[in-house]
Amino acid sequence: MAPDSTRRSEKSRRAIYDAALALVGEVGYPRTTIEGIAARAGVGKQTIYRWWSSKAEVLMEAFVDLGTQAAEAAGAEGWAEGDGIPDTGDLEADLKAVLRATVDELNDPRYDAPARALAAEGVADPAFAQEFVATLLMPSLELYARRLRSAQEAGQVRAGVDPYIARDLFVAPLAQRWLQRTGPLDHVYANTLVEYALYGIAPR
Amino acid sequence: MAPDSTRRSEKSRRAIYDAALALVGEVGYPRTTIEGIAARAGVGKQTIYRWWSSKAEVLMEAFVDLGTQAAEAAGAEGWAEGDGIPDTGDLEADLKAVLRATVDELNDPRYDAPARALAAEGVADPAFAQEFVATLLMPSLELYARRLRSAQEAGQVRAGVDPYIARDLFVAPLAQRWLQRTGPLDHVYANTLVEYALYGIAPR
Repeated sequence: MAPDSTRRSEKSRRAIYDAALALVGEVGYPRTTIEGIAARAGVGKQTIYRWWSSKAEVLMEAFVDLGTQAAEAAGAEGWAEGDGIPDTGDLEADLKAVLRATVDELNDPRYDAPARALAAEGVADPAFAQEFVATLLMPSLELYARRLRSAQEAGQVRAGVDPYIARDLFVAPLAQRWLQRTGPLDHVYANTLVEYALYGIAPR
Repeated sequence: MAPDSTRRSEKSRRAIYDAALALVGEVGYPRTTIEGIAARAGVGKQTIYRWWSSKAEVLMEAFVDLGTQAAEAAGAEGWAEGDGIPDTGDLEADLKAVLRATVDELNDPRYDAPARALAAEGVADPAFAQEFVATLLMPSLELYARRLRSAQEAGQVRAGVDPYIARDLFVAPLAQRWLQRTGPLDHVYANTLVEYALYGIAPR
């Protein structure tokens, strides 16, 4: 069991994440402040400044934590985003499991409002967008490319396929259905995308 | 040749579209006004109210017009967005041609700034987003689904494939690379997406 001080820290940390996500979802990014997050989390603002240097940093870690929680909730295998895409040797099953967990995260109300607030800020402010894309999106996109590369080495993806283009076939549709609400975003959708991307829609 | 009054109208209409797109790109959607558009286009605001009832309506038509221009510029075949996806009997060639034209439009500076301004507004204001998605995005997504359905009837797409999911494989990646700048958005990308979606990335 963790020592008391570690457990207290973990509890504060989670309370700060929750407060930051809830606040940005309610008032938007520009009006979210460290003071506001501290007040809502019931901690002093020095507690926040001890761990993070800006509200952007708090939020980025809060999103990473939310992703890890979603992955843990979805995966009997104990998969966490930071661990990469699982590699059981079955590319189809691994991609489907991760995409279904991503769908669950995108549909989680704790994710939805704050993520839309950041997306709005990112569209309005390219430098901000670049930082968030670089910190939150690119590393997880990189994990897909890496998993496809290892599948290629195992002969499950054709030689010559560019993993950076291939991954977009199943990652981008989730983003679009979430952001623009162009259709249902559910497990059937996630599974079907993987099947179409792997085997194509043309007759075989 | 068109009568003088029609040509004058066409010229004013195009000037109004250009002014509306430029203005929203510069100051954002909330601060764009009919008065501002009129002043920049060099017309009276009554001229605008004669044709449109709101700034949203002007902008939506301006985007449709921009799409038509991009398609005309790209296609020797004189394809225009309103006409649907071309159907030459060669699904791969038709999809590639349309996606390349879309890439050109997304990379056009006249499109980029105003479209980002609307996207930001749309993320912040769900009702606004819903209207723009319904008016600008869904009709063109519908054309892809329809083209895939006709390819299915011609035996070029497997029976049982859901055209509303299949189209997302090549449409959504363009949107994500444009919006989040996650990689190069060029003709090679457009062509490659179509090939992967049609034939899959798994060994055949």
